[in-house]
Amino acid sequence: MGTFSFEVLQVVGFKNSGKTTLASKIIRELTKSGYKVGSLKHHGHGGPPHIEDEGTDSFQHREAGAVVSGVEGAGVFQWQVQQERWKVDQLLSLYEPLGLDIIIVEGYKMAHYPKIVLLREQEDVELLTSCSHIQGVISWKKSIKGKQEFVSFHIDQEEQYLPWIMNTVKRRLQ
Amino acid sequence: MGTFSFEVLQVVGFKNSGKTTLASKIIRELTKSGYKVGSLKHHGHGGPPHIEDEGTDSFQHREAGAVVSGVEGAGVFQWQVQQERWKVDQLLSLYEPLGLDIIIVEGYKMAHYPKIVLLREQEDVELLTSCSHIQGVISWKKSIKGKQEFVSFHIDQEEQYLPWIMNTVKRRLQ
Repeated sequence: MGTFSFEVLQVVGFKNSGKTTLASKIIRELTKSGYKVGSLKHHGHGGPPHIEDEGTDSFQHREAGAVVSGVEGAGVFQWQVQQERWKVDQLLSLYEPLGLDIIIVEGYKMAHYPKIVLLREQEDVELLTSCSHIQGVISWKKSIKGKQEFVSFHIDQEEQYLPWIMNTVKRRLQ
Repeated sequence: MGTFSFEVLQVVGFKNSGKTTLASKIIRELTKSGYKVGSLKHHGHGGPPHIEDEGTDSFQHREAGAVVSGVEGAGVFQWQVQQERWKVDQLLSLYEPLGLDIIIVEGYKMAHYPKIVLLREQEDVELLTSCSHIQGVISWKKSIKGKQEFVSFHIDQEEQYLPWIMNTVKRRLQ
């Protein structure tokens, strides 16, 4: 696990377990509290992320062979970098110069950062043994077996789990 | 001017002077020669670059307040970073960890890297006094006044100017 100038919090879970919704809620709360927040998402098993830029100048640069293309305007910098394989630590290190307080990472179950695990079905409980650094569990069913040893919440208990997540994160950010 | 682990070559000129076409030709030639090439483009006066990602998870992260959003899948990393103002050196420094040989920069006339200047009209000749580090000039008209002191080519002389650009770049890359 790399040591960075920012904190990292992962949100993991299987497909359709609500990762993006939860990540966005955490980002919103942290931003409200004045933190400078970044995000990183693993685009699961669906190939490369789909962003429509065909016909743009960046697209032409890549067609010509550029392994990295960037475009900046009005304060927005967009970047696309291609390499055979990425490690999550390598990706996170790219964020180093940006002066962030925390990065919310969606996915990368096998990475070793503090994480919130979303459980939608009973069989998802395997995540609790395969993942490390679990801080808390949010489940869609009240009766999931095997989560007893973790701080856990039901998906409807947003008023409980969101303040709890904020507290655990803020403790690390102090 | 920053000192980087890669070389930089700028392609500058006014709108519709053929910057992207020339940049792409240079990228293609350098890639063919085995160099690892990146690109950076200044998205002129048209506001932020337009990439359709509304509805994506990255878009949701930014809506929630993330100042940086990244998504990676199948070796492709896409990144969007927002800050009030970017300096070209600051942008270039983000490319540092990627092990590139050279970055072709489109635009940023006032930056101080070696550059090729495209001249479409007689009045574009002002670029030759306002820009620094000019290596060569490519013009759309045979009779542009004021370019005599520079190595210069006509836009149709691709078979002359492309090898000349490759040579000047390769000398620096050795």
